[in-house]
Amino acid sequence: MSENTEFKSVEHILEKLSIDDKNTIKNVLYGKNTYELTISKDALDLAKQFNIELKTCGFQCQKEQTRLPKVVRVGIFQHKTPRETWANILEMREAMFKIAANAIEVAAGAGVNVFCLQEAWNMPFAFCTREKQPWCEYAESAQNGPTTIFLAVLAKKYNMVIISPILERDEVRNDTIWNTAVVIDNHGDYLGKHRKNHIPRVGDFNESTYYFEGDTGHPVFETEFGRIAINICYGRHHPLNWLAFGLNGAQMVFNPSATVGALSEPLWGIEARNAAVANGYYTFAINRVGTETFKNEFTSGDGKSAHKDFGHFYGSSYATAPNGTRSEGLSRTENGLLVTQLDLNLCRQVKDHWGFQMTQRLDMYADLLPKVIKHDYQPQIIKKQ
Amino acid sequence: MSENTEFKSVEHILEKLSIDDKNTIKNVLYGKNTYELTISKDALDLAKQFNIELKTCGFQCQKEQTRLPKVVRVGIFQHKTPRETWANILEMREAMFKIAANAIEVAAGAGVNVFCLQEAWNMPFAFCTREKQPWCEYAESAQNGPTTIFLAVLAKKYNMVIISPILERDEVRNDTIWNTAVVIDNHGDYLGKHRKNHIPRVGDFNESTYYFEGDTGHPVFETEFGRIAINICYGRHHPLNWLAFGLNGAQMVFNPSATVGALSEPLWGIEARNAAVANGYYTFAINRVGTETFKNEFTSGDGKSAHKDFGHFYGSSYATAPNGTRSEGLSRTENGLLVTQLDLNLCRQVKDHWGFQMTQRLDMYADLLPKVIKHDYQPQIIKKQ
Repeated sequence: MSENTEFKSVEHILEKLSIDDKNTIKNVLYGKNTYELTISKDALDLAKQFNIELKTCGFQCQKEQTRLPKVVRVGIFQHKTPRETWANILEMREAMFKIAANAIEVAAGAGVNVFCLQEAWNMPFAFCTREKQPWCEYAESAQNGPTTIFLAVLAKKYNMVIISPILERDEVRNDTIWNTAVVIDNHGDYLGKHRKNHIPRVGDFNESTYYFEGDTGHPVFETEFGRIAINICYGRHHPLNWLAFGLNGAQMVFNPSATVGALSEPLWGIEARNAAVANGYYTFAINRVGTETFKNEFTSGDGKSAHKDFGHFYGSSYATAPNGTRSEGLSRTENGLLVTQLDLNLCRQVKDHWGFQMTQRLDMYADLLPKVIKHDYQPQIIKKQ
Repeated sequence: MSENTEFKSVEHILEKLSIDDKNTIKNVLYGKNTYELTISKDALDLAKQFNIELKTCGFQCQKEQTRLPKVVRVGIFQHKTPRETWANILEMREAMFKIAANAIEVAAGAGVNVFCLQEAWNMPFAFCTREKQPWCEYAESAQNGPTTIFLAVLAKKYNMVIISPILERDEVRNDTIWNTAVVIDNHGDYLGKHRKNHIPRVGDFNESTYYFEGDTGHPVFETEFGRIAINICYGRHHPLNWLAFGLNGAQMVFNPSATVGALSEPLWGIEARNAAVANGYYTFAINRVGTETFKNEFTSGDGKSAHKDFGHFYGSSYATAPNGTRSEGLSRTENGLLVTQLDLNLCRQVKDHWGFQMTQRLDMYADLLPKVIKHDYQPQIIKKQ
């Protein structure tokens, strides 16, 4: 399907229903009671000027008697690759920096406190090619690389926590490469990093050719705007990965991704949302957008002819509250910024309401899993004698 | 909301869109490539006669070179309580048996091999009342109780595996009560039982007043039509419960439930579907349907006035294939039978495609969980020094 035949979004189609019908099924499909945020005219104008679709979503939360509200605005940004994939890396990086700077400026105008970019945000998603060069040259130091240095200035300027998923080069440790999310705090200081735990080996996602399973565990980053974790892309298919971030206390888990329609689109609205419900935190699913064409052709392991593009990255980035209510998605076709307003207190309120944290019988599974990984594990099968 | 103001289904509303629009968003919301089954006129007529909505859904699967297809038809049935909730228990049971016999006769006519009823299917869902009598009288022996004896005859007659979720009385062990699913094989023999692992303490689900966390682990029942497990109702909120059935080799996991709109409807389409994708098996989510009114009023712990009904059980039973493709739901308002046709080979095909079974790093979580349950566990928090 070529770029210009892609439809805009599910929500755009649902708009064709009567208001009553739309509201009725949106209550089922999206959950209830979100509201739109008031955004300054300056920020709206800026978004328009930069061709960024700006959507907002506020999640409801009860007032408590003993805790003050902890209201946070979170921005997630999806964007296209602004140059031909084969553009010079320095030039591409500059163009990417410009795009991010624009989005962050809009986000700042919209009052965003925490901002997250898509997976490997400053490069084409070139892992489909299996070529090592020049793509490995995009890898850079998490703490001192050009991207972190660039974003740190903006984080400080706008008092904003920024999550920057990049290809990491660990020069100190034998030049290893990782798929990493860098967290920069709102004073512009490097807070830490998380390396992608689960690496795909499916379709054009030849990522295991480039980097390995992360060795950073399940860190939760304590910031002035709440406790943050990052479940990078394919990790969203693994409920245990989501669980571990929750067990470490995350209140907001970001899922910066790059995924295409034929492979995953029916699952996109399910997985990050299920994780929010199961673990009592907010989730933010961010997908790349647009179609990226490469210079050299490659095959996809599906018996089809060699070709030069990866398929359409369908955007559709969205947020979910711990009660399962989700925002609308950003479009399937354009650069977009979703600004959500949330109260961190909702995490504990939902946990207290549903009680999953207490009914989950973690001891039973802590007993089971070490048995299952042993080679002599006998599955619990009941059959006729 | 009263019974007759309930809307019929999400799908019924989507029918109002143009065919192109409907197909476009159904590909996103439901996944691709299901087909309708051919059902004999006799079975269709019988369903009509019994006022059972009959829907069908076939899931696609590739042919393999070394394994024959393992095609199975699965029937799931949702139904209302056919008498006033305060009807004499013997009379209610007879009425319930009649409903089940009708549905099983239709299912047999539709070629069903495995049939599953809803949670506590032969009684009103009376746990909202917190009254012990007469409701505890519904509890009966899993192996030798009247319900198992009744269904065993039909299982043998129709060569059908029947899953029967009931309130269990273990007379041998001090009259304990459990929420249990009984599995009867296609020869009419009792194969075994599973007791609900996770018990809710939320809203009108006062189930922990009646029975406790199950002690049967995560059994998978090997039948002539595939390996079956049952995740009863609230267990669907716990990804670890779904995981454990998968680790034990389940190919089809049933989620017999009883849940109402205000509490869970936006999550209904998410959880069983996410589990199918994450674990590489088929799932079947079955919800009770209709509104049940009780003789004595009760409160719901939500500050509202005492009342006599539990809210509307919204039906919407559905099935999901391991690739995430789901069937349409049964209606939100009527008794219904969903007949799906599936090939068990798809489970392994999807696992081989996505590779979740190999990328899940079970060893990492087998190491983590025993640490987390210790009182001195220190969450992995990264904060500024």
